[in-house]
Order: sequence, then structure tokens, then C-alpha cells
Amino acid sequence: MTAAKREAGKEAQSRTGKMKLEVYADRMSQPSRAVIIFCKVNGIDYTERKVDISKREHLTPEFAEINPMKQLPAIVDGNFKLFESHSILIYLACAFPGVADHWYPANLFKRSKMHSVLYWHHSNLRRAADTYVTNTTILPALGHPSNQQAAAEAEKLLFSSLSKIESFWLKGDGPFLLGRNQPSIADLSLVCELMQLEVLDEKDRERFLGPYKKVQQWIKRTRNATSPHFDNVHNILMKVKEKLKNKPLMEANHGGALDIQKRLRSRI
Amino acid sequence: MTAAKREAGKEAQSRTGKMKLEVYADRMSQPSRAVIIFCKVNGIDYTERKVDISKREHLTPEFAEINPMKQLPAIVDGNFKLFESHSILIYLACAFPGVADHWYPANLFKRSKMHSVLYWHHSNLRRAADTYVTNTTILPALGHPSNQQAAAEAEKLLFSSLSKIESFWLKGDGPFLLGRNQPSIADLSLVCELMQLEVLDEKDRERFLGPYKKVQQWIKRTRNATSPHFDNVHNILMKVKEKLKNKPLMEANHGGALDIQKRLRSRI
Repeated sequence: MTAAKREAGKEAQSRTGKMKLEVYADRMSQPSRAVIIFCKVNGIDYTERKVDISKREHLTPEFAEINPMKQLPAIVDGNFKLFESHSILIYLACAFPGVADHWYPANLFKRSKMHSVLYWHHSNLRRAADTYVTNTTILPALGHPSNQQAAAEAEKLLFSSLSKIESFWLKGDGPFLLGRNQPSIADLSLVCELMQLEVLDEKDRERFLGPYKKVQQWIKRTRNATSPHFDNVHNILMKVKEKLKNKPLMEANHGGALDIQKRLRSRI
Repeated sequence: MTAAKREAGKEAQSRTGKMKLEVYADRMSQPSRAVIIFCKVNGIDYTERKVDISKREHLTPEFAEINPMKQLPAIVDGNFKLFESHSILIYLACAFPGVADHWYPANLFKRSKMHSVLYWHHSNLRRAADTYVTNTTILPALGHPSNQQAAAEAEKLLFSSLSKIESFWLKGDGPFLLGRNQPSIADLSLVCELMQLEVLDEKDRERFLGPYKKVQQWIKRTRNATSPHFDNVHNILMKVKEKLKNKPLMEANHGGALDIQKRLRSRI
């Protein structure tokens, strides 16, 4: 055990006697799913507090007490409150001694590379996927005007992001990001992001993912490495996907699809 | 000294005998400036390798060997290459034992809060300021079409980001982010981002910053805490600001202003 891990262990010991960890989440939000899957895979004892985005519960004064940014996910661990999913994943990996090193390595060089993936994610894949899905699927389904220029720019960024994952982040010998042999918080976070593309029209999704064989294999590997939790936590997204298949989005401006679409809007 | 800091110290010792740290940067890029100022303030011995964005040097095959994402800044420390400015700042704070703890605290809880500021920055202040400056100032000056809808959305996000800094991130007793008494890498990174607004029309800049008194004081404090390096490193930006005053951007589609504006485009 490295000194950094021991340090984390000591911090974790200060958790003894605290209330159980609380995770505020909506499973329709991709970073919420990443945090929930991480807790389940690592046997972290937690209580899931559902904040229903479709009911605008994330905008209530009560939730603002948990996260003033009114975004999901957020955690409360005793007196300690935290938001931003990557920060939460790093905290959990350090604060709970049972989490294996491969999720967030203690070694400075490996850890720094992982930070670069996580920051890259925010400015590239997340920005692209979120903007594209919002402007091509969510806003039209809600009957709201969408920004087609933003969608076109997001499409370019999404292709470029997938290409970078395929040719750079997955280029090492190992099957996971950065050529590692076991999954990290970066694999989990980025794969949960890509799962959001499931709500797109099937042909459109295939247009994005089809050319990237390594990306497809990596999604499967991350799913397998976190089985059965990955599928269980994505269950609600897959149900929505099935419903949308039978109710094309562009025609679904009212009724049930509206609620479904509100739920698609994730925040962090 | 905490165990985590000792661990960082050990990693740092493995640097002994390495080539001097190399920082690839263009001082017209806000994250490049943050990394350079950090090195100077902390007495880190480094060589600055200028990558001139206006000459598209960041797009050359030679620079792709340093950073395949073709973005600035990037560092090379011996055999170790790293990009994404927040990752670089965290690495430098951990790898160089002379860096005081307040820049990136070893304590897990303090460190986690700092991560949440840094990730928030990417999805909010950076995204807003970059999109706004690009679409209102850079693209028009280059004679390229700009996305006015994107600019309008960025304007809203920029006001909202400034409001969040004023009312939440600066709400503690201390004069810096998270109520701390001394500056961190988050202060440096966010303030360098806001300095990019200097290239806006003076009235427009005042429209954004005027309402936020704590933000204005915090910018001054961060500048003072990193004096004289802060002003020295921002010198080139201030020269551009002066030139632009005499050559309104909307009329400057050709000639010298074009080169100046190309230099404004930063990447990470």
C-alpha cells in the first residue's frame, strides 16, 4: 500500500461513525449512473436519494441545500457535501479503503494521466454528446426550438472525440483507457456518457459508433467489468429507448414522451 | 508533512537527474498563462517552449509528438508528457516538493472541494468565456461568420458563472475561492480565464464584471498574491488590448489585427 493510499485510509477512518453515504441522483443522468455503478461495484454502502429531474426536483430550495448549483449527482458523507461527478468519483476512491487502486491509481504519473482524460472529457466528449442529444432529440421532442448550428458543431466534436478515444486514449496494450488492464473511474465516466447516445435514432447512433471498433469493444468490456450493476443501473435508459422506438421523437411533442424527455436532461 | 505530501515528495525525487521541465505554451492562451505563472511563483525551474498559435505551430506534426490533441499548454518532464492545464497544475503541485500545500491541499476533503471547482470551471466559466469571446470578438475580427445564438447562450452562462463565483465559491471568510486564506491552483486558473475578457470592448467587459464586486476584489488579490509574475505574464495580452482599442474589432478584418486575433485563440 502506498503512502497516498494509507493517507486516504486514514481519512476514511475518520468516516467511522458517520451517517451512511447519501448519493443524490437521477439514473437518467449519465454522471449519476457512473457514481451509482461505482458505489455498487466497490461495495460502498450508500443510500440513493432520487432527485427526479422530470419533476424539476433538482431546482427546489431543498435540493439547493445539498448542491447550490442545482445539478446531479451530489453526495453527502456525514457533514461533507460534494458535487461534480468526477470530484465525487475521486473522493469515493480515496475515502473508502476497499476501493482497488486501479480505479484511481495512487502513483502520481498514472494519476496525472487519468486527470488529463477526465478534464479532456469535460471539454470534448461530454460537451459534444450533451449538446448533440439535446438539440437533435430532447428539444424537438419537447416542442422547443433547437439550435441546429450548435448541433452541427457538436456533431463534428462528437466524431472528433470518438476518433481521439479510438486512436489515442485506447491505443495502449491493455483493453481500457490509457492502455490499462483494469477499468478506472475514467472508463466508467466516459462509457456512461456514450450510453446516452442510446436515445438517438438507431441509424444515427450507428453512424457515430459504427466506425469505431475499439470504442465499441471498450464499451462492452467496461459493461462486463462492472456486471451486473452496469445493466441494472442502465435499465431505465433502455426502457426509455424502447418507448422512443415506438414513438418517433419529432412527433412526440405532448403526453408521455414529454415526461420521458424531461428525464433525459442531465446536468453535470 | 502529510503522508500524501511525502508520497508526492518521493515521486518528485525520482525526477532527480531528469532534463529540466519543459512548458509548451503561448501566453495569449489563458491556461498557458496559469501554468507559467504557477511555475514562476513557486520557483520551479523550467524552459518555456513557445508554440505560436497565430502561426498554427500547435497544429504541426512536431507538436503532435508532444500533445496529440494539438492543444496548449503541455509539459514534458523527463519521459513524462502531460496536457490539460488543470492536470498539469496538479502534477506540478505534487511533483515539486517546494510547492506550498495551499496551492493543492493534501487533505482529502479540501482537495475534493478544489476538484469540484476545477471541474465546474470547465463546464461553466471556461465554456462561457471562450464561446463568448470567440463569437463576439475573434470570429468577426477574422471576417468569419459567428454564431450569434451561441454567443447569446454563452452570455447567459457567463453571467450565471460570475454570479456563482460571487455568491457561492467566494462566500467563505477567506479572500480566495472556497473561503481559503491563500490562493490555490483554482484561483489562478479561473482568474486567468477572466483576464481573457480584457480583449472585449471596455463597456462590454464592464457590463460583465461591474455587478460582481467580490469577483473584482478576488482578481486583484490573486494578481497581488502572484506579483510580479502575474502582470509580467499578462503583458502580451495587455499590449493586444491596447492595440485593439485603436482598431475596433468589427472593422479589423484584414492586416495586423488578424494576426493578433489568431493569437487569441487558446485551446485548453
